[in-house]
Amino acid sequence: MRATVMYGAGDVRVEEVADARLIDPTDALVRVTRAAICGSDLWPYKSMPHDDAGRRMGHEFIGVVEAVGSDVETVKAGDLVVSPFLWSDGSCVFCREGLQSECLHGGRYGWGDVDGGQGEAVRVPQADGTLVVLPIGADDELMPSLLALSDVMGTGHHAALAAQAGPGKTVAVVGDGAVGLCAIIAACRLGAARIIALSRNPARQQLARSFGATDIVAERGEAAIEAIKEMTDGVGVDAALECVGTGQSMATAFGIARPGSIVGAVGAPHGVEVPIDSVIFRNIGLRGGVAPARRYIPELLDDVLEGRIHPGRVFDFETNIDGIAEAYAAMDERRAIKSLVTVGAKETRR
Amino acid sequence: MRATVMYGAGDVRVEEVADARLIDPTDALVRVTRAAICGSDLWPYKSMPHDDAGRRMGHEFIGVVEAVGSDVETVKAGDLVVSPFLWSDGSCVFCREGLQSECLHGGRYGWGDVDGGQGEAVRVPQADGTLVVLPIGADDELMPSLLALSDVMGTGHHAALAAQAGPGKTVAVVGDGAVGLCAIIAACRLGAARIIALSRNPARQQLARSFGATDIVAERGEAAIEAIKEMTDGVGVDAALECVGTGQSMATAFGIARPGSIVGAVGAPHGVEVPIDSVIFRNIGLRGGVAPARRYIPELLDDVLEGRIHPGRVFDFETNIDGIAEAYAAMDERRAIKSLVTVGAKETRR
Repeated sequence: MRATVMYGAGDVRVEEVADARLIDPTDALVRVTRAAICGSDLWPYKSMPHDDAGRRMGHEFIGVVEAVGSDVETVKAGDLVVSPFLWSDGSCVFCREGLQSECLHGGRYGWGDVDGGQGEAVRVPQADGTLVVLPIGADDELMPSLLALSDVMGTGHHAALAAQAGPGKTVAVVGDGAVGLCAIIAACRLGAARIIALSRNPARQQLARSFGATDIVAERGEAAIEAIKEMTDGVGVDAALECVGTGQSMATAFGIARPGSIVGAVGAPHGVEVPIDSVIFRNIGLRGGVAPARRYIPELLDDVLEGRIHPGRVFDFETNIDGIAEAYAAMDERRAIKSLVTVGAKETRR
Repeated sequence: MRATVMYGAGDVRVEEVADARLIDPTDALVRVTRAAICGSDLWPYKSMPHDDAGRRMGHEFIGVVEAVGSDVETVKAGDLVVSPFLWSDGSCVFCREGLQSECLHGGRYGWGDVDGGQGEAVRVPQADGTLVVLPIGADDELMPSLLALSDVMGTGHHAALAAQAGPGKTVAVVGDGAVGLCAIIAACRLGAARIIALSRNPARQQLARSFGATDIVAERGEAAIEAIKEMTDGVGVDAALECVGTGQSMATAFGIARPGSIVGAVGAPHGVEVPIDSVIFRNIGLRGGVAPARRYIPELLDDVLEGRIHPGRVFDFETNIDGIAEAYAAMDERRAIKSLVTVGAKETRR
């Protein structure tokens, strides 16, 4: 089968690899129909040293189940499914608590003998604990938003929950990438009264507004902090969502958070230093982390199916698997917010 | 009047200073009867460069109101009062939310023209927002526990609340100082099922047990983390309370916290680096800070008055104001957990 392999910074190729196949009785074999490129895929795309063996890429996908192992009970051949970006057993202590991203027996796609999502098929371990069946057939319009449930929408939701964004709150979102934009959807969905989006990109500003942002701040760093303080009677926002993962974005989030609030952080950290003085002397908390997307899919699914939220609008670049290198480049150069890749047969042909 | 002045590391003196007096109409003049030395007083005691002007010390005290300004409504001359370790106006946006430690118009004792608590009298600014009247007369046995409400008991309670210690939870307390010991009381009071105290000092271990600790871990650092992991099915505790404020104590707290939990941190930070990887990849949050002791006094007071909690047992060194240098030395050398200083007339003589 064909799949995406990264050999180093800027070097992404589609190649023939060994066919995905069932190994364990808890596996499902999923024929991928749509996959996405994640902001986190850009970190190796920017910095990975050359590796002759290559790294299988992708962890966000929708597909049709082709076969299941003998122990699988909740999905069957023919089911259209979405996978969260991590696989999880659904039965360990953390899964039972709804923190599937800390599953004791789970793991990542594209590592070891588990396929990556940006390919024609994937062996999904622990299928019962991982996959969610989509109760629909072919629907080109819905697919992008359903695919967004695999990662960015759940991750934005995790940031909003961590920061206790909720009814009546003033929320600020640091980061105008796909996760930040989905965090705006999440904050709006949770009832926030005012949502301040930090963005200097006109197209993203517009999307932010369509997702529920009430205010846009184009400044960065200290100037952004000043601007938001001024908008909030000098005290800061009730919930700051950190959706980038850099030192500056974390500093901005703590700078705009009001005393007693929580910074909800979901950006993969690169050079982040937590300002402990703000934690202690301003009573500003920090929560978040790798989102249990599996937990959130069922609760967000209805909102997607019934058209209340449209996280799929973050996909502004679409190609087939042969165009994957360009799909990476478009995101890396910030020409695209997020790339959607159609792979093999569409859902219609299952 | 006589008051405590620090001139540099190890140099604490009792001296004649200008009499405390009412200045603003919102002031109360409080004749101090008992004062305490705080763990945070030990930081300048260890490291303060010599300063000819000296620094007025103390922020934990009980006393009798001698006079009040014309705007003061809730306390009157003759009232026995306890002060939280910060003064606050009781009316700003943060005070109204119960976060008086972030009061927009509050401040610290011993700074500017506000007296320190380790002296014969204190001008208390914003008396209505700060002081709490104690509904009792002379009671030598209760006084230490009431004095503990001014800081350490409320601070331990803040750590426990921040970490969501509660019914059925397994809680670990890092730090066997007065705050850590009070955090044990708080966790027990909130219904924790299991309380692990980290301490290698036999006297403190015993006090920890009397406060509700069910387990003692005498190891430190990695060994402590190993031991606690072993006690908790390998996953860690539901709530880790960081009551020290050093790099090692924070690392230990994050090391023993289970994924999804919150580290409740109240130690004044000295060389602390927050392990951001644990925040993101283990979903461990961080909350806490300078406690709103003023908020907690009323809710903890009944438990003290009715003998359900005895935070005053952390005082294991008592002297009068002439012995203050020795009271500092005893704590600094860890001969004492916490020192109580009787100042001037006792409550009986008011």
